[in-house]
Amino acid sequence: MIDPVLWKRHGADLLPGSLRLLDQTRLPCELVYVELDDLESIIDAIRRLVVRGAPAIGCAAAYGLAAVCQHSTASAAGAFLAEAEAASGRLAASRPTAVNLRWALERCLSALRPAASAGATVAGLKRLLIETAQGIFEEDLALSRAMGRHGLSLFEGRAGLGVITHCNAGGLATSGYGTALAPIYAAQEAGLAPRVYADETRPLLQGARLTAWELQRAGVEVTVLCDNMAAALMRQERIGFVIVGADRIAANGDTANKIGTYGLAILARHHGVPFYVAAPYSTIDLAIADGGGIPIEERSGEEVTHGFGRQTAPAGVGVWNPAFDVTPSELITGIVTERGTLRAPLGRSIREFMVSAGAGR
Amino acid sequence: MIDPVLWKRHGADLLPGSLRLLDQTRLPCELVYVELDDLESIIDAIRRLVVRGAPAIGCAAAYGLAAVCQHSTASAAGAFLAEAEAASGRLAASRPTAVNLRWALERCLSALRPAASAGATVAGLKRLLIETAQGIFEEDLALSRAMGRHGLSLFEGRAGLGVITHCNAGGLATSGYGTALAPIYAAQEAGLAPRVYADETRPLLQGARLTAWELQRAGVEVTVLCDNMAAALMRQERIGFVIVGADRIAANGDTANKIGTYGLAILARHHGVPFYVAAPYSTIDLAIADGGGIPIEERSGEEVTHGFGRQTAPAGVGVWNPAFDVTPSELITGIVTERGTLRAPLGRSIREFMVSAGAGR
Repeated sequence: MIDPVLWKRHGADLLPGSLRLLDQTRLPCELVYVELDDLESIIDAIRRLVVRGAPAIGCAAAYGLAAVCQHSTASAAGAFLAEAEAASGRLAASRPTAVNLRWALERCLSALRPAASAGATVAGLKRLLIETAQGIFEEDLALSRAMGRHGLSLFEGRAGLGVITHCNAGGLATSGYGTALAPIYAAQEAGLAPRVYADETRPLLQGARLTAWELQRAGVEVTVLCDNMAAALMRQERIGFVIVGADRIAANGDTANKIGTYGLAILARHHGVPFYVAAPYSTIDLAIADGGGIPIEERSGEEVTHGFGRQTAPAGVGVWNPAFDVTPSELITGIVTERGTLRAPLGRSIREFMVSAGAGR
Repeated sequence: MIDPVLWKRHGADLLPGSLRLLDQTRLPCELVYVELDDLESIIDAIRRLVVRGAPAIGCAAAYGLAAVCQHSTASAAGAFLAEAEAASGRLAASRPTAVNLRWALERCLSALRPAASAGATVAGLKRLLIETAQGIFEEDLALSRAMGRHGLSLFEGRAGLGVITHCNAGGLATSGYGTALAPIYAAQEAGLAPRVYADETRPLLQGARLTAWELQRAGVEVTVLCDNMAAALMRQERIGFVIVGADRIAANGDTANKIGTYGLAILARHHGVPFYVAAPYSTIDLAIADGGGIPIEERSGEEVTHGFGRQTAPAGVGVWNPAFDVTPSELITGIVTERGTLRAPLGRSIREFMVSAGAGR
């Protein structure tokens, strides 16, 4: 398995330690890990996409908060909590779209607050923080495995057909097993020999650099294509289904994911190809009624015009570079979760799922 | 005006001379011209996309044939014709999809054959060849201007709305004024201040490198976006229409154009945005009933995996890299030609247009 996000113990105990990230900006040519334990470096790593993918960002933020706060010199629980809240606020602002980031940080703070009120020591709070982060990580791994098991059913009656995915919602985007790629890995383990088409995913080529890399490494047959080739592929070859991850899902099922997902969903609908989203419960934001309320991060135009060490557009030209788009729920066949696949009407399925997910934890 | 393809006289006369090309692989950062007069270099330039765009390739092939054949040492007309036919065959095979290439070469040979039979001298045939090539070039320029005039009507009732284009069907793809961009230039000249969104057009980024460059140079407002952002753009902003060029149009209106065009047409249909193709009569191939008969060039996977001077996918990964796709006629609102805009049913409109185009020449 890949380890995109890990807690690196410095000794036998959980503390002291640091956040270890696989630097995804260096893939596929270099396998480089970085170890971080200061706030600015961790924020910079999240912004620069050293770590990316909503679940992996959540794990990194939780571990990152623990890494930063272990160095606190606060002598009282209240002061420690204030420091943790301040650091959490900075981390939460590092990327606006993925809800898991805020969700993971809030879960950490929610663990600290009652303990601080109940008289925990600063050392105890530091330990509680890293244990909470560790719990988020382990839960993510379990959720990925469960999405893989449930997603296996997508292959029924479609063995041998190609599967298209966009961006990277694989091991690299999570604790190590993936959301959209979890059913692919499960199919590979089940001997179904899935054949995957990976959109390269401009501007940052997460599909070509990351999805192709991790699938190839796992022995899965993978073909890279440019994003603009997906329509021709759907016309030429029988595609079993499209599956993508999600950065945030609104209460009605509208899904924010990497830019290009919405167009791919329209192409799938046009060709009668089922279109699935795979995401754990932490990706669903019931506070947002529909996709119109999801903030969309716009990133620097240089990612488009100077993306690979070479200038590829004239100086001074206008550029539009939204990092995400919103796919309306009516274009989504189903959402693969850790408890099975939610189907239309997605709004109702999501409400029922969130009740059962909450009840189960 | 840009001069992507020119006949460079060495003195006062048409002959001797050479084919001068603006090296489009070096844009937008360098403005470099190359002068060619030998067959292998000209074939290489067409293959490497030093010159690209169906009408420009046609002009370059005709000039190229004249440049090569001027050096013929044949002493008889028959031998000269045989040499010209052999060179033409090699040139025609340099790229399979664009019909203008074969059309321009056939037009040159069709001029030579009766003259050779009628007792023309080799010197006379050399002159006839360059005059025919010059005629093709001048006609292309006139056709572009006419497409611009007719395409102006697309802006009626849509002033101020954005226009999306894909790849480069501009001055660089023709003798200097464009097909899809001709109406844009005409609108700019008419003071309509068109606003253009240029798909960057992976893998070779003709939109970002070429369309953005020539529009910016002409003072037209242009914004570059990645191909996978077009759907989000159509949802977010009112787009007046999409307009693209064509490499070959079948008798029923099915249109081969740069990969990504088909997907863009589906997105336009989904959002209720009119989708236009702009092309002169030489792009229409009545010998092909529908798009299924158009050969689609597949290019090296390295264009996708090593396109930016840096490896962006793991070594050994599978790649699919078709250079073109086919947009079925039912997704095309109209075809802007030098005699006005053809509308559905496109098959019948094309037949009538070709009769009148033939009659007018």
